[in-house]
Formats: sequence, C-alpha cells, structure tokens
Amino acid sequence: MSDKERLVLALAGGVGGAKLANGLAGVLTPEELVIAVNTGDDFEHLGMHISPDLDSVMYRLAGLNDTARGWGVKDESWQFMAALGALGGETWFNLGDRDLATHVERTRRLAAGDALSSVTAALCSALGIAHTVTPMSDEAVRTFVLSGGLRIPFQRYFVEQNCKPVSDGFVFDGSEEAKPAPALATALAAPELAAIVICPSNPFVSIRPILSIPAVSQALARRRVPVVAVSPLIGGAAVKGPAAKMMAEQGLPVSSAGIATAYGDIIDGLVIDSADAGEAATIEAGSVRVLVTETLMQGTEEEERLALSVLEFAAKLRPRGQ
Amino acid sequence: MSDKERLVLALAGGVGGAKLANGLAGVLTPEELVIAVNTGDDFEHLGMHISPDLDSVMYRLAGLNDTARGWGVKDESWQFMAALGALGGETWFNLGDRDLATHVERTRRLAAGDALSSVTAALCSALGIAHTVTPMSDEAVRTFVLSGGLRIPFQRYFVEQNCKPVSDGFVFDGSEEAKPAPALATALAAPELAAIVICPSNPFVSIRPILSIPAVSQALARRRVPVVAVSPLIGGAAVKGPAAKMMAEQGLPVSSAGIATAYGDIIDGLVIDSADAGEAATIEAGSVRVLVTETLMQGTEEEERLALSVLEFAAKLRPRGQ
Repeated sequence: MSDKERLVLALAGGVGGAKLANGLAGVLTPEELVIAVNTGDDFEHLGMHISPDLDSVMYRLAGLNDTARGWGVKDESWQFMAALGALGGETWFNLGDRDLATHVERTRRLAAGDALSSVTAALCSALGIAHTVTPMSDEAVRTFVLSGGLRIPFQRYFVEQNCKPVSDGFVFDGSEEAKPAPALATALAAPELAAIVICPSNPFVSIRPILSIPAVSQALARRRVPVVAVSPLIGGAAVKGPAAKMMAEQGLPVSSAGIATAYGDIIDGLVIDSADAGEAATIEAGSVRVLVTETLMQGTEEEERLALSVLEFAAKLRPRGQ
Repeated sequence: MSDKERLVLALAGGVGGAKLANGLAGVLTPEELVIAVNTGDDFEHLGMHISPDLDSVMYRLAGLNDTARGWGVKDESWQFMAALGALGGETWFNLGDRDLATHVERTRRLAAGDALSSVTAALCSALGIAHTVTPMSDEAVRTFVLSGGLRIPFQRYFVEQNCKPVSDGFVFDGSEEAKPAPALATALAAPELAAIVICPSNPFVSIRPILSIPAVSQALARRRVPVVAVSPLIGGAAVKGPAAKMMAEQGLPVSSAGIATAYGDIIDGLVIDSADAGEAATIEAGSVRVLVTETLMQGTEEEERLALSVLEFAAKLRPRGQ
C-alpha cells in the first residue's frame, strides 16, 4: 500500500490523547489522518456548550495548549472567573479568559444551527489546523459515572468532585441513538483505512464513549485493519487522570495488562511503556501483540517518535481472525 | 415633609446618567432613592443578554467603573476578545474579560426564569450596592434608529457604525405592551414620592425609551411631584455620546434650550451648566424653571454636589398646573 492510499484513524480523548494525536499529525499528512474525539464529557455550563476533549486536541494541534498546567490555553488569564466569583456565580469549573472565546464561538455557531463537526472544522481552520479533527458524533452522548446508586454527570465527577466517588460503572446517555460524525463514518468505511490507533486515553471515559456508538463498535467488530492501543499507564499509574483509580474500582489489575483486558477483543496490539516490559508476556498470552517502547510524551519530538513507533507496529499487525 | 418620607425617582441611561445616579446614591439613603434605568439598548450578542446602561449604573455605584475609558470595568483585560478574533468570531462589540462575567451570570439567571429586575437586584447585592437599581421594565423594549428608510438596532448604530447614520427618528419596539418593572411602578405610585430626576442622559435614546412605556408617560402626565432634568449638553456639546448630533438631525437647537424643547411638558425644571447661563431666560420663557450650576462630573464629589443642587432645586418647584 503506497503512502498516498494510507489512512489512519485515531480515537482520542483527554490530554494523553491530544499528545499522540499531535504526534500523528506531525508524521502524517492531512489526507492520511482523521482524529475522532470523545464528546461524552461535553456539557452545558453557564449557557455555553463546552467540549473539553475537542479543545484539548485542538489547542495541542494549534500549539496553544498550556504545558505547565496540562490543560487549557497557554498565556491564560482568569479575570472572568474572579469577576464571576464576585457576582456569586458558579466557579467550580475553571474557564480562562482566552478559553472562553472557544466556548462562546462554538455555542454561537451551534445555536445558529451548525453541526458540532462543522463548528469543530471551522474553529480548527481558524487556528490553522490542517488535519481533520472530528467529534465522535454530532449527536449528544453524555457520560455519567455510576456511584453508589447515583448517576453523576461526568464533569461534576471529574472536576467538582475531583474523581473522589467510587465508580461502579459508566453510562453513555444517548449513545444507542447516536451516529458517528460524517468524517468518522467515512474513515471507518474507507478502503484506504490502514490502521486504527487508540490514543493513550482513559479506556472507560475517553474511549468507551466513542465505542458506545453502535456503528463504531460494529465497524470495529468487522474490521479489516489492525487496531492498536497505547496504554495510558506507566508503572501502574496514569500519567494524568483517574484511569488507574477506575481500573481498581472495576476490579481490573492496575497495569498495562489490565488495559489489555479492558479493551478485550477490540485491539490487536498494545503499546506499553518500557517500565512495564515485564507485562508483555502476560498480555501476548491473551493474543494481543505488544510493542514495548517509551510512551511518556513531554513535547513534540516525543509525540512524533511515539506516533512513528505506533504506525510501524500497526503496519506489521493483522486484524484478528485474518 | 420629613426625610423619612422622601422618595426620589431617578431616570438614567448611559455614563452621564450613571454619574448623577451615583451622586444621588451618595446623598440619599437606600430607602429614599429608586434608580430606573433604560434597557432600550439591551441586546442579545454571542448568546448573552447585554444591558449596557444597567451595567454602567451598577459599575459606577459599585466603584468598579473605568474612569479613563469612560465605560466598562476598571482593571479590565481583553484576552477573550483577542482569542475570539483569532477564531474568526464577531468582535465589533468590545467585551472585557471581567465585564463578561456580568453578561454570563445575567444570561444564566434569565435563562433560569428570573425577571431582569430580580437578576439586577441579585447582581447589585453581590456587588454591595444597597440602593435600588431597576430596569425600566422586565419586558423587552428595543431601541432602533431610523435612518434613510433603514431600522438600525441601537448597538449596531452606536458601536458598530459609531453613530454615523443620520437619525430620522427612533422606534422603541415592544414599549406599547411593556409594563414598568415592579420597583419603578411602586415608586411612581408612592405617596412619599417627592421628585423625579431625569439624569444628564441622551433624551432620545436613554430617556425616551423609559417614557415610551405607557404607564410611565401616563404617570408623568398626571404627576403630583416636580420633574427636574439635567441637561447633558455643556456649551452646545454632549459630554459623551451622540446627543448633540441627534438634536441637529431632529431639527432642534443644539443647546440646553433645545433639551428643554425635547422634553417639552414632561419637565418642570432644567439644570443647565454655567457655560450655558445665557440660555436661562429663553428656557424660562417656555415655563420651565432653570437652575444654573456646574454640571460636569469628574468624580464622586462633583456627582454628589450636583445631586444635592438638583434635589434642592426640585424641592422648590411645583409640578405644572399646580
């Protein structure tokens, strides 16, 4: 297969996902890559439609992400939040002054009747992003964390309650009726699709919402191309976020082997960190091929190096049953 | 009449109105003053409900107004606007980062079903304002500038087109059906009402929208208390805004005498600046009493001094026909 015909589909959510997505965008042309992003943690707040994972990917690809804080926009200021607090407004979700522009403009375009994928394309274009970034769906799919009989909206769990509630499970409200966004549907059906890369995102609340869309899981079940995931864990800990805590709560080993178990039949290969090399044999016994490499990404160079390793690994794999 | 029984109703709009309102609040107790503010130039923008005149009054009374710029909040920053511009958003109306919090919180409360007067009371309370600030109405009244057959929404005329179109007239859409907000209605009917003060605001687009509400004009027509206006012109020029230009376009003398003509039977007294002392005789010939004093307000002291002069002047007047 020539480079011209190659298409890679990346599934991403969260900051780790944004990093590998940026690495892939650095080594693949805009024609070779589609980045489909979790919108399960989108929510309406203060009258605005907020898409945290789309923003993480968009800001990273535009070079606008804040590396010290790990989320949001660099050179950010917080005058809006300070003034909102003085007015007695809701301040549990931090909104930077520059970041606000994204939410206001997205909300304005959605209210004008544009689909979320069209809005995302317009925002990315304005920020000079040439690669395709698409929400997983134009329809609303909303993640809830189940905890002791409660059904907690994801951002309330993640931000307001700082991931403290014990997760008994997850609900992706609306997913049964949701269709993949046009660019994702096209990529899944494309004859030139060569690999699907699951970025080092949280399997439960970043990737599963994407897989919860029936047409996506069906396409993956009958896939003709390898699916490679990158483990978000290094040495039994998540680089960022509640993945390790959730694994323990789901009764899974808190390890890259546990990640392989969490993905099950969906993946053909798993990329794990050198720190976890000892787990490779266990994972391969479960018929998932393993690539051991450095998975920590602390800048563009490491993002692109990992992206190349993942693509080379995927090129050697065949999907299950073939 | 004892101080306890005195109630003063101020009608205000714009920056000049906010200044005298602040002066009145400095010399009257919260029980003695109701400030009713023009909402004809309210508009929906980027999904937010913006009330420029309410904000001018609220920021001035809270001591948050920017004195150098003349509008908006002090210590303001513009990160949101810069980011919105980068996204290709609408940037013709300047929204500072701190100011944004007011619009977002007001919009959130309105969307939750609160009346604009309740929202205004809550915002003022949060900012430590003890005096009553009320929108003229809880219903939408929208000012349009008529110009050469066009009907231009006020903020488009005022901000986007920088007041350049020639004004043939004004329309206050919705005013026929609008009721005064509760605090304004109560003040108009209060037995202890002692005076109505029309602040040095634009007669056409700040005060007329208030008077365009039938119950307000009816109450003023059968008034038992004097109405005193402060001229917004000094030496034939407006301190700020398009009042002088509009007067010329309406065929009125661009002078405090022209202001008296613009208000007609509505006022019993007019306060004019010492620079315009020569006009006093002309105005009094039209049966409006005149007070000549310094009307330029460049700080709290001058605002309060003018407020006291206006109140003393009003106390000596009788309403027409009595």
